[in-house]
Amino acid sequence: MKLRIDGKVSEVRAIWCDEGVVRMIDQRILPHRVEVLGFRDHHQVAEAIRDMAVRGAPAIGVAAAYGMMLAANNGEDLDAAAKELKATRPTAFDLFFAVDHMLARVREGDDPTEAAEEYANTIVERCRAIGEHGERLIKDGARIMTHCNAGALATVDHGTALAPIREAWRNGKKVFVYVSETRPRLQGMKLTAFELLNEGIPHAIIPDGASGHFLREGVDIVIVGADRIAANGDFANKIGTFEKAVLAKELGVPFYTAAPLSTFDLSLKRGEDIPIEHRGEEEVTMMDGMRIAPQGCKALNPGFDVTPAKYVTGIITERGVLRPEDIARRLRGARL
Amino acid sequence: MKLRIDGKVSEVRAIWCDEGVVRMIDQRILPHRVEVLGFRDHHQVAEAIRDMAVRGAPAIGVAAAYGMMLAANNGEDLDAAAKELKATRPTAFDLFFAVDHMLARVREGDDPTEAAEEYANTIVERCRAIGEHGERLIKDGARIMTHCNAGALATVDHGTALAPIREAWRNGKKVFVYVSETRPRLQGMKLTAFELLNEGIPHAIIPDGASGHFLREGVDIVIVGADRIAANGDFANKIGTFEKAVLAKELGVPFYTAAPLSTFDLSLKRGEDIPIEHRGEEEVTMMDGMRIAPQGCKALNPGFDVTPAKYVTGIITERGVLRPEDIARRLRGARL
Repeated sequence: MKLRIDGKVSEVRAIWCDEGVVRMIDQRILPHRVEVLGFRDHHQVAEAIRDMAVRGAPAIGVAAAYGMMLAANNGEDLDAAAKELKATRPTAFDLFFAVDHMLARVREGDDPTEAAEEYANTIVERCRAIGEHGERLIKDGARIMTHCNAGALATVDHGTALAPIREAWRNGKKVFVYVSETRPRLQGMKLTAFELLNEGIPHAIIPDGASGHFLREGVDIVIVGADRIAANGDFANKIGTFEKAVLAKELGVPFYTAAPLSTFDLSLKRGEDIPIEHRGEEEVTMMDGMRIAPQGCKALNPGFDVTPAKYVTGIITERGVLRPEDIARRLRGARL
Repeated sequence: MKLRIDGKVSEVRAIWCDEGVVRMIDQRILPHRVEVLGFRDHHQVAEAIRDMAVRGAPAIGVAAAYGMMLAANNGEDLDAAAKELKATRPTAFDLFFAVDHMLARVREGDDPTEAAEEYANTIVERCRAIGEHGERLIKDGARIMTHCNAGALATVDHGTALAPIREAWRNGKKVFVYVSETRPRLQGMKLTAFELLNEGIPHAIIPDGASGHFLREGVDIVIVGADRIAANGDFANKIGTFEKAVLAKELGVPFYTAAPLSTFDLSLKRGEDIPIEHRGEEEVTMMDGMRIAPQGCKALNPGFDVTPAKYVTGIITERGVLRPEDIARRLRGARL
């Protein structure tokens, strides 16, 4: 992705490995400051995932893969490391997928660093392919709506939902992106708008509650990411996704989710089976360390919601755009 | 309404007149501080409406009525005062209704102070009646969802959407209220949760985007306010209302709006005819004076959206609960 650092536009990834040190852009302090964290053991990586220095299902997966690499290179107990990394967050399937993948590769005798780099590169390559497949759904002049951040920051590079938008823009199509801010943590405002700004793609931030208004005013396509996709096409994504899906269907706007194969959990039949993370209420009642809610009031803060497949027009993957009902047939036996 | 001021619970109104001075609770700084403003001319009242020291359609109407009282008592040009007050905000119909009502009363030779007090008392009485009619829709143990603030602060006392909830609670029914925070200005979090806290009514603040999640998890009734209701039952209310209406219908949850007759604009056939206020983007990109959006990003900030009547189960008024299709027949010739 393009990122302006100290006034200079550079091409960077959200996570990378540099002489045995795992580096990540600290996503908690974006867009106000661009800082790079460095980790030398898997405990630090687990903490970074838990505290959301890195977030977004594919990026969490890559971070966890690098965490497993550090554990292996440091001679740690791999089962304990896998358990610790898997316990950081419950919803994103890429986390479990990546840890199990690394465990298998290292046990097969593969070099941990090579295996982690290959995992990261595979995710990046898949996101690039998602961009190419999804780009065909975007017409010249399209008004696109997205939610939260399913961009390069969420996926190491390119993005899932943002990959088709980037690709369309690079191919010379005019686009305009409605970015719903995504309370409580505002990843739409703070990360997606920031990525689009860095790429020069026209966009506007909107309050989450204005999505319905703009969907009725005129949006051509909605594209969001996914944290876990069940075998029937129901999927979990950032809280607020379900609302957009229902509204899009009601208003006749095509609604897509974009995700690599590592996000599909074919062991789950339905969306109801996906565990939903409930996060601390202070994400709602506080803003940048300041209390904004009345003293004494409680808040509820589900991190994700589940969108039933019946609201989904299609799922943009590295293998093309799937209909929810085709998942089981098309992905049976698929491997990384 | 009950309000804890300096540790003591008092029974207060949001706006009142005290020896010729118009007093209002400053709603811009709630819930952190309770401060009372005092105005001696209609210019100050117009500024208070424009800057949202007072907000909520019925309360804006009462503020404007008191503004006209000050203009009349100060010997000002009443047409100019009416024009100035009407130009403050475009969507709430109560504003125009109240100004025209006061203009007619004063021109008929009525005492301006008496006319304004009567207008305020009539609105309070109507909200009380809305509470009684709406209370019958709330069963013991009900889980209720509301949006923005349609409480005593928005209506001088009782509220519109909150009046039935207050009444049910006072009648001993157990209730639980989901309060959607209502970005960008957070009137749900800062005003509605604050009112419920002061009354001791159980509630939780939720991000706007979590409304769909909780509507599916189990909500018995949605009640919101209205800023203007057209003759066919379409109505404008705070941005985010339309989404809740669509979701409620999709999920089979009854959806009501509550408003006094002063909110009905029978001169408008349909919701599309209601003028929608577009407010400054800094309400979205800034929080309590601090920039939260990336520097250089734009935001869109429609203050209201329009909910078509087909999503509305009923409209709770001081004359009972109306079906949208009954408005024209039931309200023809209705007067303050």
